[in-house]
Amino acid sequence: MTGNSIGDLFKVTSFGESHGKCIGVVIDGCPAGLKLSEEIIQNELDKRKPVHENFSTSRREEDKVEILSGIFNGYTTGAPICMIIWNKDFDSTTYESIKFTPRPGHADYTAYIKYGGFNDYRGGGRFSGRITASFVMAGAVAKRILRLFNIEVLAYTLEIGGIRMKQMDLDEVIEYVEKSPVRCPDLEASEKMLKMIENVKCEGDSLGGVVECLALNVPVGLGTPVFDTLEGDISKALYAIPAVKGVEFGAGFNVAKLKGSENNDQYTIKDGKIITLTNNSGGILGGISNGMPIVCRVAIKPPSSISKKQFSIDLIKMEKTTLIVKGKHDVCIVPRAVPVIESMVAIILVDHAIKTGIVPKVVKDVME
Amino acid sequence: MTGNSIGDLFKVTSFGESHGKCIGVVIDGCPAGLKLSEEIIQNELDKRKPVHENFSTSRREEDKVEILSGIFNGYTTGAPICMIIWNKDFDSTTYESIKFTPRPGHADYTAYIKYGGFNDYRGGGRFSGRITASFVMAGAVAKRILRLFNIEVLAYTLEIGGIRMKQMDLDEVIEYVEKSPVRCPDLEASEKMLKMIENVKCEGDSLGGVVECLALNVPVGLGTPVFDTLEGDISKALYAIPAVKGVEFGAGFNVAKLKGSENNDQYTIKDGKIITLTNNSGGILGGISNGMPIVCRVAIKPPSSISKKQFSIDLIKMEKTTLIVKGKHDVCIVPRAVPVIESMVAIILVDHAIKTGIVPKVVKDVME
Amino acid sequence: MTGNSIGDLFKVTSFGESHGKCIGVVIDGCPAGLKLSEEIIQNELDKRKPVHENFSTSRREEDKVEILSGIFNGYTTGAPICMIIWNKDFDSTTYESIKFTPRPGHADYTAYIKYGGFNDYRGGGRFSGRITASFVMAGAVAKRILRLFNIEVLAYTLEIGGIRMKQMDLDEVIEYVEKSPVRCPDLEASEKMLKMIENVKCEGDSLGGVVECLALNVPVGLGTPVFDTLEGDISKALYAIPAVKGVEFGAGFNVAKLKGSENNDQYTIKDGKIITLTNNSGGILGGISNGMPIVCRVAIKPPSSISKKQFSIDLIKMEKTTLIVKGKHDVCIVPRAVPVIESMVAIILVDHAIKTGIVPKVVKDVME
Amino acid sequence: MTGNSIGDLFKVTSFGESHGKCIGVVIDGCPAGLKLSEEIIQNELDKRKPVHENFSTSRREEDKVEILSGIFNGYTTGAPICMIIWNKDFDSTTYESIKFTPRPGHADYTAYIKYGGFNDYRGGGRFSGRITASFVMAGAVAKRILRLFNIEVLAYTLEIGGIRMKQMDLDEVIEYVEKSPVRCPDLEASEKMLKMIENVKCEGDSLGGVVECLALNVPVGLGTPVFDTLEGDISKALYAIPAVKGVEFGAGFNVAKLKGSENNDQYTIKDGKIITLTNNSGGILGGISNGMPIVCRVAIKPPSSISKKQFSIDLIKMEKTTLIVKGKHDVCIVPRAVPVIESMVAIILVDHAIKTGIVPKVVKDVME
Repeated sequence: MTGNSIGDLFKVTSFGESHGKCIGVVIDGCPAGLKLSEEIIQNELDKRKPVHENFSTSRREEDKVEILSGIFNGYTTGAPICMIIWNKDFDSTTYESIKFTPRPGHADYTAYIKYGGFNDYRGGGRFSGRITASFVMAGAVAKRILRLFNIEVLAYTLEIGGIRMKQMDLDEVIEYVEKSPVRCPDLEASEKMLKMIENVKCEGDSLGGVVECLALNVPVGLGTPVFDTLEGDISKALYAIPAVKGVEFGAGFNVAKLKGSENNDQYTIKDGKIITLTNNSGGILGGISNGMPIVCRVAIKPPSSISKKQFSIDLIKMEKTTLIVKGKHDVCIVPRAVPVIESMVAIILVDHAIKTGIVPKVVKDVME
Repeated sequence: MTGNSIGDLFKVTSFGESHGKCIGVVIDGCPAGLKLSEEIIQNELDKRKPVHENFSTSRREEDKVEILSGIFNGYTTGAPICMIIWNKDFDSTTYESIKFTPRPGHADYTAYIKYGGFNDYRGGGRFSGRITASFVMAGAVAKRILRLFNIEVLAYTLEIGGIRMKQMDLDEVIEYVEKSPVRCPDLEASEKMLKMIENVKCEGDSLGGVVECLALNVPVGLGTPVFDTLEGDISKALYAIPAVKGVEFGAGFNVAKLKGSENNDQYTIKDGKIITLTNNSGGILGGISNGMPIVCRVAIKPPSSISKKQFSIDLIKMEKTTLIVKGKHDVCIVPRAVPVIESMVAIILVDHAIKTGIVPKVVKDVME
Repeated sequence: MTGNSIGDLFKVTSFGESHGKCIGVVIDGCPAGLKLSEEIIQNELDKRKPVHENFSTSRREEDKVEILSGIFNGYTTGAPICMIIWNKDFDSTTYESIKFTPRPGHADYTAYIKYGGFNDYRGGGRFSGRITASFVMAGAVAKRILRLFNIEVLAYTLEIGGIRMKQMDLDEVIEYVEKSPVRCPDLEASEKMLKMIENVKCEGDSLGGVVECLALNVPVGLGTPVFDTLEGDISKALYAIPAVKGVEFGAGFNVAKLKGSENNDQYTIKDGKIITLTNNSGGILGGISNGMPIVCRVAIKPPSSISKKQFSIDLIKMEKTTLIVKGKHDVCIVPRAVPVIESMVAIILVDHAIKTGIVPKVVKDVME
Repeated sequence: MTGNSIGDLFKVTSFGESHGKCIGVVIDGCPAGLKLSEEIIQNELDKRKPVHENFSTSRREEDKVEILSGIFNGYTTGAPICMIIWNKDFDSTTYESIKFTPRPGHADYTAYIKYGGFNDYRGGGRFSGRITASFVMAGAVAKRILRLFNIEVLAYTLEIGGIRMKQMDLDEVIEYVEKSPVRCPDLEASEKMLKMIENVKCEGDSLGGVVECLALNVPVGLGTPVFDTLEGDISKALYAIPAVKGVEFGAGFNVAKLKGSENNDQYTIKDGKIITLTNNSGGILGGISNGMPIVCRVAIKPPSSISKKQFSIDLIKMEKTTLIVKGKHDVCIVPRAVPVIESMVAIILVDHAIKTGIVPKVVKDVME
């Protein structure tokens, strides 16, 4: 409840600031016996890199993970795993000018009030999107655990700036998603999104979007009613990503327009396994996974740092002023949010899988 | 993490089953000195009653609260408050027939698997909407605490079966909401919703909708980044309501279509107070309240219990079958969800207000 | 952290006051499939009754348990189990006189200050030994779970008023403990203790003592270093019993006088099982059970309610005064603490057994 | 509940291994505005150094703290504080020989079983006394917070190897404690202890003892009944120190020999403040601080690593064997445990002081 930890039995604690010494994470509760290395973590971390020059930030961090504890002879020991990324390439000078002039849409103002002005405002401090690198490091571990149990988490860009991908089969999604610089498996839509990002970049403006995330092969029984539902816990985890303003599962907000007879997922049996004919529930019934793919969608707001002039206030003089945010910033973070969203979903699934007894305290990891 | 508690410093633990002896709740962490009585709780509880014969369930519970502990001489003592409602009017006979034939859209199947068939399936057991009565009892306490600090939580029906209320000022909303049997302050829309409910009732089908919830006069600084954000905690709490499939804040999913320059809430000063010109953030920045009204919207699915024939499976024989759910059921629970949603938001706000130090351990309650 | 819950995965929440409507408990996280009835709980609860007229309180409660939730068809369902005892035979009149005159040794003063005078002081309210009835109800469930896994918890009176039982074999302890009215298996010492209690009763004074508690057949591996050690968690749980002022494990405070070569428990193999030649560690190494019997001792202070004149203060006038506590009270609670101590140890062991994966989410209970 | 965190609102998470890259700690929930520097932490850390060549380990770590996050411009920001000590001077070669031959009295065996042989056994890994360096780093922060509120925590050696210090006034204790190489304020006893340590060192054996810890100026009202009592939380925290086998408060185990009339602390008023004439309760009544000094005593076992031949087992062959532990080891860790015990008590007091509202979320630190 101190805010920087999530998960009960697979507990992830985040620390570090955007322009401090490092970004880090401690995982407590990771089973012993998991094969783990900096290389495995690095692979995931690299997915969070800006994927295309058109919507990249000026910051060119290497983001090299260093594992500080919890691994011995290439395997997890059951002890807490601490991992950090040393911050290297940053310039904090532009932030002095906005110290008392909060950027609209950013957490500058609320952080200033909450922490009595002691918050580290450089680069947004703890409120920077950079913090999500700690989520991805933990997510890399979570994903590996899930993979031992054949569970896969997969996210992709569904919509950017009003352009939405077409309906696609899972096979196609998997085939094409890595081919798109914006991580949208509909390559035609991807092209349009990229074009729009270029245009908006010229305007000095920014764009939001929607990410869809699937979890496949999740066994029946994850989720703990009534409060620690799978939807509730996934949702809470996703809101840790600075730009998220909405989360929905299955048919989501569209349920408001459906009748019960349309929305209910009727049962059948296929290959000896109970499945539903539709998946409006998004794989979750009564807060518990039902064996169908878990489906959630996440609304990502446009980055608040834009180069257009905006109204702000001078916190010292308590008077109106205007502000132009300097420095280069991401035009659209949707593609970079994709691995972060996967990570949050993976973390929650591992936590619940441990609670349910599916993942034991010592695992046998024979994967490559 | 055992699932039936929510809140860290204002901890609400729910217990009881739909067709068991009672529905109950324990609140641990309620400040001492709060004026409290069964009457105060009952007032809130009565709002959860079916408000109109057209969409009521057949069950006609009195739902009378009994306070078992934590109150002395009319005030809270700082000790845990236990409150129960004795279950009276129920008929469990119809449930035997569906014991091994899960109702589509309900938690019958997932509960059966998770609890090895030991779950109390009568009336949905722990997965019944009736459980939300325990949320409302706790919410009544939370609301009274908030009121001591001038904070109000207000929810209303925004949409039912595709019919959406018009844009209205807060004053109008407050004035008209109680006049609508479906708790929709747009009385014209309310009329249409009621009509639609009647029609769908005849079809033996059901309807979903959207509830909007506001929290007014919330001070700046509630919410604990990075994981215990106000959005995350409210969201998680709302998913405890069985029918919820989506939650969004401020501009919500619409942020996907906005540019940064449109979405950013620019600052100004009014009456010596810092406010924003728009409220796309829904009163929350960086997971922390910014002093503007908190705005969230909640998607409610249509009740899964419908009288139409549906495909199900026989869990014992592991073969396909069909099912007609018997008994009378709610056609649309959206209006009844309104006080429940208010309760969940109030509970989370109190929890964060205690964490932030706004609500002390001993309060002075001089309200009527 | 709100204080009235203990356990992470087997979470016990206590509520109720000494002179309120009832004493109650909610268990969240109990596995489904456990055979449970009011009779099973009552059996344990009866052990907490005053066992002999010489040291009994005047209060003659029947202490009949009523199960409110979580049981269906004689088995636990996985849902929270609420149990209560309705308070019946109490007289609160004597407590008005001490409302502002705290009894030495009791929590009257600290409760008054902490809760701003709103605490229910009748019969000690939440600080009464009567609260431990809620621990015993939960303990009865915990013990049944442990028994499924062949684990037994056994406590007995080691010392009362300076009289200490002789060294005895486990077999003898088990054979004789139930024959002693003070639960001391050394029947000669038991006789002396009883005599001393009689004498001290005449003086209007009270007596303390020491209880020893064993946990047998605990598998290797329970306990979660570095903070959630078995010693730490058991110890914390025991301090919930109002009169406890010291807890030690194995050789306990005597380790201060031992050399490493004397204190170290050397290993050997017996019947194919690793055991230690001595048990100075009390069955716990590095916070983790080692398979040997867990041994702890608990110091119980003499009841603070005595009929001798004592110095107190008038909290309103802020001046010195004297006090004679009226009513009949326990002369020595050590024998009644025995089942309470067993309960607390059992609760913690179950919690850790669930964490370790030894107790699954659904159990198979074929015991009588 | 994953074991490596303690505290609810001032949460301390420990990580790192004895022979890994580093020992570290994350503090989440530290108020903003606290003056903090590596120098302040280092001062405390230096107290944990071996204080005299006679009972030192061979390891000569510099133990230099590095702050990684949470401090900005010399003040805490409200963000998590991560601090590490890089491990430098260690030799793991001797540990290979005991990999499958657990040292009696150490956690080798339980760790091996619990973590399936994946535990880092080098230097005891997570079970090394070296881990307590992370407690001291967190304790340094806690102590500074307490000092802002005039609360002091003070521990000293009460007994080593059966030699016990005489009764001393607080003033004398404070005056002399730093003059003793074993941190025993009774300098005559200190001399004897030192002598005994020398002798036992020659024997290749080790010694235990008792540390007494006081907390002064603690306000009335800290502690949350019924489970999160001050005794319970302090006790649990102390058991995180590897060698602790007993904890008692006030009169402790001696209460077993006292009558109520002797044990009850009667009230009086001194300088307008309510105090008690004696302090058998150790400053805690009903789990809540009563304003008197908090007094606890901690039993420390002799270090298990001795150079005498001991019986062990071969975990692979499952047969008896003998073992001589190589390397130099602490003969007596009691003096080094003193600052660690102070740290654990300070951490718990801060946690409760935040809960009680005594320590706000933003502090004003004007101390040197």
